[in-house]
Amino acid sequence: MSNLIKNAVGRLVPTEINGEKAIPFQGVGKYRPEGRKAAPPIRTSADYPADGDKIVADMKTALKNAGLRDGMTISTHHHLRNGDQVANAVFAAAAELGVKDLRWFPSASFPVHEPQIELLESGVIHHIEGSMNGPLGNYCSTGKMRGMAVLRSHGGRYQAVQDGEVHIDIAVIAAPTADPFGNATGDRGPTACGLLGFALADSEYADHVIAVTDNLVPFPCIPWQIQGNNVDQVVVMDSIGDASKIVSGTTQITKSPDRLLIAELTARFCDEAGIVRDGFSFQAGAGGTALSFAIFLRDMMRERNIKARFVRGGSNQYLVDMLEEGLTDYILDGQTFDLEGVRSMRENPGHQNTSPFTSYNWHGKGNFASMLDVVVLGATEVDVNFNANVVTHSDGRLLHGIGGWMNCLASKCTILPIPAFRDRIPVLVDEVTTLCGPGELIDVIVTERGITINPLRQDLLAKVQGSSLPIVDIHDLKAEIEGICGGAPAKPDLGEKVVAAIKWVDGTVIDCVREVKV
Amino acid sequence: MSNLIKNAVGRLVPTEINGEKAIPFQGVGKYRPEGRKAAPPIRTSADYPADGDKIVADMKTALKNAGLRDGMTISTHHHLRNGDQVANAVFAAAAELGVKDLRWFPSASFPVHEPQIELLESGVIHHIEGSMNGPLGNYCSTGKMRGMAVLRSHGGRYQAVQDGEVHIDIAVIAAPTADPFGNATGDRGPTACGLLGFALADSEYADHVIAVTDNLVPFPCIPWQIQGNNVDQVVVMDSIGDASKIVSGTTQITKSPDRLLIAELTARFCDEAGIVRDGFSFQAGAGGTALSFAIFLRDMMRERNIKARFVRGGSNQYLVDMLEEGLTDYILDGQTFDLEGVRSMRENPGHQNTSPFTSYNWHGKGNFASMLDVVVLGATEVDVNFNANVVTHSDGRLLHGIGGWMNCLASKCTILPIPAFRDRIPVLVDEVTTLCGPGELIDVIVTERGITINPLRQDLLAKVQGSSLPIVDIHDLKAEIEGICGGAPAKPDLGEKVVAAIKWVDGTVIDCVREVKV
Repeated sequence: MSNLIKNAVGRLVPTEINGEKAIPFQGVGKYRPEGRKAAPPIRTSADYPADGDKIVADMKTALKNAGLRDGMTISTHHHLRNGDQVANAVFAAAAELGVKDLRWFPSASFPVHEPQIELLESGVIHHIEGSMNGPLGNYCSTGKMRGMAVLRSHGGRYQAVQDGEVHIDIAVIAAPTADPFGNATGDRGPTACGLLGFALADSEYADHVIAVTDNLVPFPCIPWQIQGNNVDQVVVMDSIGDASKIVSGTTQITKSPDRLLIAELTARFCDEAGIVRDGFSFQAGAGGTALSFAIFLRDMMRERNIKARFVRGGSNQYLVDMLEEGLTDYILDGQTFDLEGVRSMRENPGHQNTSPFTSYNWHGKGNFASMLDVVVLGATEVDVNFNANVVTHSDGRLLHGIGGWMNCLASKCTILPIPAFRDRIPVLVDEVTTLCGPGELIDVIVTERGITINPLRQDLLAKVQGSSLPIVDIHDLKAEIEGICGGAPAKPDLGEKVVAAIKWVDGTVIDCVREVKV
Repeated sequence: MSNLIKNAVGRLVPTEINGEKAIPFQGVGKYRPEGRKAAPPIRTSADYPADGDKIVADMKTALKNAGLRDGMTISTHHHLRNGDQVANAVFAAAAELGVKDLRWFPSASFPVHEPQIELLESGVIHHIEGSMNGPLGNYCSTGKMRGMAVLRSHGGRYQAVQDGEVHIDIAVIAAPTADPFGNATGDRGPTACGLLGFALADSEYADHVIAVTDNLVPFPCIPWQIQGNNVDQVVVMDSIGDASKIVSGTTQITKSPDRLLIAELTARFCDEAGIVRDGFSFQAGAGGTALSFAIFLRDMMRERNIKARFVRGGSNQYLVDMLEEGLTDYILDGQTFDLEGVRSMRENPGHQNTSPFTSYNWHGKGNFASMLDVVVLGATEVDVNFNANVVTHSDGRLLHGIGGWMNCLASKCTILPIPAFRDRIPVLVDEVTTLCGPGELIDVIVTERGITINPLRQDLLAKVQGSSLPIVDIHDLKAEIEGICGGAPAKPDLGEKVVAAIKWVDGTVIDCVREVKV
């Protein structure tokens, strides 16, 4: 058992994770990285086919050629979200090859990856480092995984690979279209998913890179979102997945009157605070409330003839409509959330794909996230100090990934539009179960029972003073909610064992997750 | 004076260059690199403006902020060719700041950079590492430069930076359009030059990166050929140069009957050898003969309804015509040679910009050059063993850069269409003055007096046997030419001093250049 130490936000966090030293969170912008970026081995073209044909027979052959052995780190990506069939194929092949104790380093895992539980049990996979949505998160929560999970934001994953904190031995990249040289794109082909940005760090820094496609085209595959010059081998599969499942349930607009009210209040707040003006920028998450907010905003922009300079996606049909209607110059897209997003990215030069490097990497020369005028994000819990949780439920279970959430907190105005309670359990609490976002970065919380503004943002308070918005104090709001729900929520029943570490955008440990008692 | 050693092609080359160990050429594909790529320092966004505005007052301020000091390596790029005004501005500012002994590491220098001779004389610049076209080459040739020049191919320059062989302290990138974050593109703006690929390595690996623009746009500058996430500072100048001068004299079709014949013979050879077929690929250099070859090829393709999969540029109006006419699926462009190329790159998704990384880097996982069915290149001299020279004239003067020439030799068929003599001096010689390309990589030489095929390519000889092409033995051809010119050319009058080293695509030294006696 690792020692625990109290970090700058008062959380007890492990000083060692899976045998490696971990640095406790030191405060926003406080930790200064040292040293140089990770440096992959120098290769020579003498070792690669002159005709550019890197195709090998199958996944097993590719893994063998890559020198797969016990204890290696294998990465995969969630561009196909719950439609992905590549990660399962990789570990099935690894199991057949008889290797053990692999570290799986996905950009995120989804319910479709539930079969990996068997391989975690049989010893093929030692542990998962990456967001776990659903069954794998639940498995981890109950303390069954041998190693400690490590959850990072999209930007944090790039940072960890770039900084050499995570060394990837073999990266396997699902490619909806690729050529024999390994150039690959996600914006076309039968399994088109949009972009492949989550695999960028892996393609740049992994020792060995395998591209897997079900749509092989003659060289050159254009565009090349992943560059064949970074790819060692190409595997052709019958199908890499089901692109229709990139659309998750949360990309539908909410029908709940409460949620619609929250969305509307959020849009009105942006207006009253002077954020909605010509040339502004915004980013809204994938949830139904965030989507509805975007619709309210769009209507406002149409009415007043206001044009955004750029909007950030997760793109979807609504953002695409805005682009095509001329309500924004650009979509800067990190991940397409529906097939309209994929189409637009393929067709429209104003629909620009981005990566965790451009958008989110804290250990870069700046990134896009801090330039956003406003971002609208979700949360599972928020506390009276505006600290927020995005990974665990009120029962302590680890069921969600971080995504770009932590990175987006760097924006000029961060708003969390959230329901006051879920299943009669208040979302506003004294202390969040897991602290993923420090309160100093969270500016506004919008509920159906009022809007509360972080006292650190006196500028925002001043701007909406005298407006018709229902501005309330966070303590008053919390009391009101507890009145309705019959008190504060019960503390989750947690054990001592740390099952997951939560890393901040700079690689330090901001919190950890304890096992739930079952 | 450095020791000299005989390398694998029998050339005496220095074992030390400017105080650093140098590796003699070991044969094509023989040298195996070791170790890991260069690793730039890890940065933190905490040190960069959150609003993304990296603009500073002027070049001098930028250089000061970058910590400019004696002995540093400063890089610039030749995207604007003879129209560039940025490199001169950089070193003028450096001179004003009083620094000495800088290493200038341009991707190439042009006659417009002649003012740097004064700074070489005054001690601001110690020496130049990079192709020198014209006056600077002449200056170097006469032994006046304090350090030894190092000439590399475009791919070799990327390799040297990637491998850490050349560490760039400060890269200054001329950007025809840029935003305050440093995202930059060359395909638009009043000084549009096409692409900025030669600066890619610098943007990725230099300690400090300055983008210089005369066309500032609000974030985001799209496309971003250079990513702002790699840029430290942005400088705005009134003008970065004169885009009309990216068109050099050599981008005009030849009017010489001899050269036209050479071009036609080259096209006919490609035809008879079975190279011109559906889905093929070719690359032709920027010279008038190469351009004329492309026209003959185009007519042939039109006539027979043959479509190329891709052509490589140096793009120009003729390649653009072919793309727009549907004679090729793609132009894979490394450098635009005229303004039609710039327009096409901006407008046509089939006109894809590439970089020395994708096209030429030998120390990668393969590159595009070896996939070409045929490349057509120039040379100043060729010897009876098919070795070729591309940097020095018959008088020994270093007047040309290597460009992508060395890298292109990796193609499936390399053809040198050259006149049999220039100014009555035979181009075919017993031994080239400077060996830039080993004969084993040069397959065919086409002159107005016959085509000679490398005996190593029995396959090509067999294919054209019985054709009407004037195939001749290289010794017979040489004898005929000497008969016309009145004998073999005189050996240039050279001193002992080594003024420049010529590096092969793998970083080893293939030859060196001696001072000319004046």
